[in-house]
Amino acid sequence: MASESGKLWGGRFVGAVDPIMEKFNASIAYDRHLWEVDVQGSKAYSRALEKAGLLTKAEMEQILRGLDKVAEEWTQGTFKLNPNDEDIHTANERRLKELIGETAGKLHTGRSRNDQVVTDLRLWMRQTCSTLSALLRDLISTMVDRAEAEHDVLFPGYTHLQRAQPIRWSHWILSGAIAGNPLGVDRELLRAELNFGAITLNSMDATSERDFVAEFLFWASLCMTHLSRMAEDLILYGTKEFSFVQLSDAYSTGSSLMPQKKNPDSLELIRSKAGRVFGRCAGLLMTLKGLPSTYNKDLQEDKEAVFEVSDTMSAVLQVATGIISTLQMPFRQAHEASGKAVFMAETKGVALNQLSLQELQTISPLFSGDVSRVWDYGHSVEQYSALGGTARSSVDWQIGQVRALLRAQQA
Amino acid sequence: MASESGKLWGGRFVGAVDPIMEKFNASIAYDRHLWEVDVQGSKAYSRALEKAGLLTKAEMEQILRGLDKVAEEWTQGTFKLNPNDEDIHTANERRLKELIGETAGKLHTGRSRNDQVVTDLRLWMRQTCSTLSALLRDLISTMVDRAEAEHDVLFPGYTHLQRAQPIRWSHWILSGAIAGNPLGVDRELLRAELNFGAITLNSMDATSERDFVAEFLFWASLCMTHLSRMAEDLILYGTKEFSFVQLSDAYSTGSSLMPQKKNPDSLELIRSKAGRVFGRCAGLLMTLKGLPSTYNKDLQEDKEAVFEVSDTMSAVLQVATGIISTLQMPFRQAHEASGKAVFMAETKGVALNQLSLQELQTISPLFSGDVSRVWDYGHSVEQYSALGGTARSSVDWQIGQVRALLRAQQA
Amino acid sequence: MASESGKLWGGRFVGAVDPIMEKFNASIAYDRHLWEVDVQGSKAYSRALEKAGLLTKAEMEQILRGLDKVAEEWTQGTFKLNPNDEDIHTANERRLKELIGETAGKLHTGRSRNDQVVTDLRLWMRQTCSTLSALLRDLISTMVDRAEAEHDVLFPGYTHLQRAQPIRWSHWILSGAIAGNPLGVDRELLRAELNFGAITLNSMDATSERDFVAEFLFWASLCMTHLSRMAEDLILYGTKEFSFVQLSDAYSTGSSLMPQKKNPDSLELIRSKAGRVFGRCAGLLMTLKGLPSTYNKDLQEDKEAVFEVSDTMSAVLQVATGIISTLQMPFRQAHEASGKAVFMAETKGVALNQLSLQELQTISPLFSGDVSRVWDYGHSVEQYSALGGTARSSVDWQIGQVRALLRAQQA
Amino acid sequence: MASESGKLWGGRFVGAVDPIMEKFNASIAYDRHLWEVDVQGSKAYSRALEKAGLLTKAEMEQILRGLDKVAEEWTQGTFKLNPNDEDIHTANERRLKELIGETAGKLHTGRSRNDQVVTDLRLWMRQTCSTLSALLRDLISTMVDRAEAEHDVLFPGYTHLQRAQPIRWSHWILSGAIAGNPLGVDRELLRAELNFGAITLNSMDATSERDFVAEFLFWASLCMTHLSRMAEDLILYGTKEFSFVQLSDAYSTGSSLMPQKKNPDSLELIRSKAGRVFGRCAGLLMTLKGLPSTYNKDLQEDKEAVFEVSDTMSAVLQVATGIISTLQMPFRQAHEASGKAVFMAETKGVALNQLSLQELQTISPLFSGDVSRVWDYGHSVEQYSALGGTARSSVDWQIGQVRALLRAQQA
Repeated sequence: MASESGKLWGGRFVGAVDPIMEKFNASIAYDRHLWEVDVQGSKAYSRALEKAGLLTKAEMEQILRGLDKVAEEWTQGTFKLNPNDEDIHTANERRLKELIGETAGKLHTGRSRNDQVVTDLRLWMRQTCSTLSALLRDLISTMVDRAEAEHDVLFPGYTHLQRAQPIRWSHWILSGAIAGNPLGVDRELLRAELNFGAITLNSMDATSERDFVAEFLFWASLCMTHLSRMAEDLILYGTKEFSFVQLSDAYSTGSSLMPQKKNPDSLELIRSKAGRVFGRCAGLLMTLKGLPSTYNKDLQEDKEAVFEVSDTMSAVLQVATGIISTLQMPFRQAHEASGKAVFMAETKGVALNQLSLQELQTISPLFSGDVSRVWDYGHSVEQYSALGGTARSSVDWQIGQVRALLRAQQA
Repeated sequence: MASESGKLWGGRFVGAVDPIMEKFNASIAYDRHLWEVDVQGSKAYSRALEKAGLLTKAEMEQILRGLDKVAEEWTQGTFKLNPNDEDIHTANERRLKELIGETAGKLHTGRSRNDQVVTDLRLWMRQTCSTLSALLRDLISTMVDRAEAEHDVLFPGYTHLQRAQPIRWSHWILSGAIAGNPLGVDRELLRAELNFGAITLNSMDATSERDFVAEFLFWASLCMTHLSRMAEDLILYGTKEFSFVQLSDAYSTGSSLMPQKKNPDSLELIRSKAGRVFGRCAGLLMTLKGLPSTYNKDLQEDKEAVFEVSDTMSAVLQVATGIISTLQMPFRQAHEASGKAVFMAETKGVALNQLSLQELQTISPLFSGDVSRVWDYGHSVEQYSALGGTARSSVDWQIGQVRALLRAQQA
Repeated sequence: MASESGKLWGGRFVGAVDPIMEKFNASIAYDRHLWEVDVQGSKAYSRALEKAGLLTKAEMEQILRGLDKVAEEWTQGTFKLNPNDEDIHTANERRLKELIGETAGKLHTGRSRNDQVVTDLRLWMRQTCSTLSALLRDLISTMVDRAEAEHDVLFPGYTHLQRAQPIRWSHWILSGAIAGNPLGVDRELLRAELNFGAITLNSMDATSERDFVAEFLFWASLCMTHLSRMAEDLILYGTKEFSFVQLSDAYSTGSSLMPQKKNPDSLELIRSKAGRVFGRCAGLLMTLKGLPSTYNKDLQEDKEAVFEVSDTMSAVLQVATGIISTLQMPFRQAHEASGKAVFMAETKGVALNQLSLQELQTISPLFSGDVSRVWDYGHSVEQYSALGGTARSSVDWQIGQVRALLRAQQA
Repeated sequence: MASESGKLWGGRFVGAVDPIMEKFNASIAYDRHLWEVDVQGSKAYSRALEKAGLLTKAEMEQILRGLDKVAEEWTQGTFKLNPNDEDIHTANERRLKELIGETAGKLHTGRSRNDQVVTDLRLWMRQTCSTLSALLRDLISTMVDRAEAEHDVLFPGYTHLQRAQPIRWSHWILSGAIAGNPLGVDRELLRAELNFGAITLNSMDATSERDFVAEFLFWASLCMTHLSRMAEDLILYGTKEFSFVQLSDAYSTGSSLMPQKKNPDSLELIRSKAGRVFGRCAGLLMTLKGLPSTYNKDLQEDKEAVFEVSDTMSAVLQVATGIISTLQMPFRQAHEASGKAVFMAETKGVALNQLSLQELQTISPLFSGDVSRVWDYGHSVEQYSALGGTARSSVDWQIGQVRALLRAQQA
């Protein structure tokens, strides 16, 4: 004991335990998020013990009822943490013992703490991946719906931020929707890893590897990279200089000093989160690097990373969905005006380019001197009819493909 | 307004503002840490306004009293946040206005929110750097004290984890103490940046650059890299196979299944934090990369990084100090035994290597067949007497140098 | 032109083009690695043009013959680069034109440079993934073979680097073999992405997203993290203090000053490469963050990252295979000695623990006073017979599972 | 020997040494960059040996002449590497021995290879820091010169990429020049570390810490972050939509398909390099994390990182200087036109805003209906006359400050 051996040099405390070490060591401040899966895992484990003859049926039922009571307390906010509850597993076990007595101890039989920690985290991530996947589907659905409804809206395409050919707005939207895909693939991987149908092959590896965490953090980083690029485009398109889109007030903030300004805070925050999320991924890999095999306390770093990234992704996906669904686009008005022109031409029995500027301006003030360029614009876009291109047929095909992917994922 | 324009595709909410966006946008959950420096900054600013003739003396005093009251509420835990307080600056201003009325609004004169944000953070970091610097000095002092007290203890040196020449334990300790130095240098830089004696040269740069944050995060990363290496050494030295040191119970945990084990959780956690801290540094640089100049909301990411890293460093430095000050070392017993042998030889008037094994074993059971090697060991160490070496004179010189550095820093 | 507009301030050069810019811009120094896939892609494209009626059959054949000649020159080392060849695509086209004249220009029809760049890289990565996958299979096969041949060798297990239960050496080996798995999964993904059976869905996304590069770099990072941990274990096991394994001279270096040392350079280099490889992954994600959509020259950074990581992985996997296949293990001698003891006991018709120490020492000097502990050791290991455990039956099952995975991957 | 012990499992090679290991281990492919400082260090060391009485004067002179000959061979490109030269130190020593015989061996006396490696790298970095510092000064000088010459040119300021108040172009330039400063500070640190006036305090730390490398890589990362932001601004300002600046042809590339395009490749490459440089910094820190103290082969990773980053920074700084010095700016023409208007008003003896539109249009077609806004614009800028602001006096003060910094650094 420290108090017996004496501290020789410059210590801060007297006694057996350094209170700062206790706090440094404890994970309860964040792993309480795991209360539900910890109860769920313990219930499953007690059933397995009964099947193996290590618990009687009565003992198992006592434990199950006790665990239900623990869960109830968490749900109702009445669960009281003790200062000695250093993690969620200790806390739940301590409470179970208070509720049902010594039988609680039998839940330990043949179960290591390190296994329990990793199992709980896998269970929690199964839930969170499912939630995030649904949110990502919402975003992609919104994008595809919008791509379909607005597939006649054209605007300038860019490479190197220099204007290139005109493209369909839907073509741009779909390039983002497709980029959102990684989750689809990776979820498959995570799902396969997390569904517990497969048994972990090697007990040393099972407590020690955190590939499922690293892959989740990398998926999130890559997804955020795509979203940061989509945000960058929309920030540019929303500047006074580009004036292609207008962000809804729900997702922008004004400036008291300069009321004409409409700051795209929502998009800037999305862009910024790419750094935060990737930082967590980088941090975990650095923590893992060079660790000896099996469990080391270093692995405790996994949880805060996962919780923070999960919260961030959830907020980002919802805000992105909101932004896309409320975005206004001046080009849409142009499209409506040109629809009316087509109607006028048909009504008058003339070709579109035979309408006079004066006639067109009765439809919309958007028509000005360079009307013929508008018709050329549309023609240019239709040239790119290869699959993946910006012609209407091609964009419709892409919409179909993405919808099929969404359906496949939901199945 | 979103509610007017209507949302066209798949939205989640009806109304003017998306509640998830509000939460996503708000920084109050973490920037409340800044309450004290925000009040401090506002008090200084109101004095400057009075000097410039933009506030009357009465107004200034009213504001100062109001701000003191705000600070009092924070200190006493009675400050009540409103749902509309999206950041600490809004919160403090809103409360000031409630307390003193319209005069509060004059505090705005010529001050931009972006300036206020960055000034508050600089003020906060001045405090935190000072605190961390003191903790780092504690750690280094403890190391130097211990190096001095135990400068006769020898143990094997390693390169490539292969045994090389014997070295002094103090030589190892000092290699860590010196590695702790970066703060010394960087603090100088940060101090220079943060002391506000110098005026920021360029207003665009002032709201937009976060070098002082990046440099702090990098200092912390580099410092943690050193501490991770020191932790790795001590974890190895504490294994049954090396058995050089024994960690105090205050900084290790036992295992219920295997009571002989003494897990070096404290050292493993220190080692792991290198990843977390560097992840924050990586994240911030990624967030900064490619941002347009002046203020963008992306910059809001700086604060959580700084707060988390500051907390982590504070805990790590204190725990490391505790570990070093309570570490037991078997080699020290060997040293004491050999001291007694020297005394016995002197008493008997013979050379040290003329003492018989039997005589030596009356002193300590540590003496066994290979006594002559012990004397060789000591001889080997003394060969390395160049400055920086492992000879006693050299180690004493290093102790002096580090003490001088510590004194210089405190001055 | 710069020379016309004049340079006003502090320029270094006079003329139309800054030579440093030319070098900064050119990628030929590293993208010449792509010569083979560039020719392959152009051949396929010329066939597609013929099918589409955009080339006559004669033109196509002329182009194909020309491209074969280009390839021949690269193979024979006679291809001469011009100073104006800024990338591999320009170089091959320029040479093709020299060889077959103006027909060469028709190869451009409807093909953008940005498409060509990304197609070539995908083709190259298909090759490199296949090569790396084979090398990884070699490593895993070697590990599994060794695990099978030595499944009776026991040694101490560790958690927190503290000795826990004894385990089978094979159990440790397999924990590494299983950790090598990510390639299996990710290759599936990359293969799916790279087999071109699927058409890229969206032309904007196709030139702009680099998910296949990012996923490759992350796979490599994660794989290196595992290998760094395996290397750490073996470095520790090879220290004088642990003395579990001895590295072959082929993979270690001596020290002229201290001949008894055997530095595990190979393992240290493997451990270090985790940093380098992850650094490339981090760098690419940072480069991608916040880029506007479609092609930007920033994307040129992808290639050097991929080439360097591919070379590093190739060397690391081969060296790791060599290390594992030549590693000596003292515990193996112990195992052989205990095999002889079993034989002696059977021959004498007595139980194993009835053999005297004297009898045992005729077999091997490894037998010493604590023989009974050896038999206990073996018993302890056999307790862990759950799937994934360290009992012989469990380890054999793991060997079967990994072999099945290897077969599945090869199919 | 591997060939003696036999390889048991799946090896690739037969013999004592694995050729892939030899290549994996060798650093000569990149550390040949160090030939000059290696010779320089050896010359200094031989003089120190002579002073210590460990070499005779004749021996020292023989060694010095031999080393000069080695250097001459490198300079003239006639130095021949042997297959056994695994690093630059071995190569130079081997050649020295061929040239002067056994005396060469005495150069080893009391010098460890690990010391030599780190000393050479420090010497090399002293040179490279000096070169990069000069290039950075060139860039900053160019910026300041330009800021001074064009301090009357106004253009829109932005926050959140939303137009805010008009600012001076010089104000923007100076915000970049000031951001370039980190080198100033850090070089001070590196210079202090590298000038060898100070003795390394601790021999264990001296071979093992790489703070001087990490700090260099971080300085480069932070500097690149600033340059990436400057590049982003200029890319935006050069779009058709912003049309504030026009990049010289020397730093942009055209598109054969779309001749009107002028891609800002140079700026995009600068922006992209932030990722690469930071990746190297991240990689090194990950490599360092958790390493045992003193030398481990992992540290060999430092050199390629430093060489690559040094080359990248050198190219980036020169290209950036070229870009800034040749950039065209339409606002400058506007400024010249308004200068002529002032002259016209003075000549006519009327106030500026009394000139008619017709009169103004004889000066330049740039004058159109909203002339009065131009005068307002200028007025707005002059309001911000606090130090650091955008008023002319303030910008002139900043120019003075930066010039003073440049002078201080050169001294």
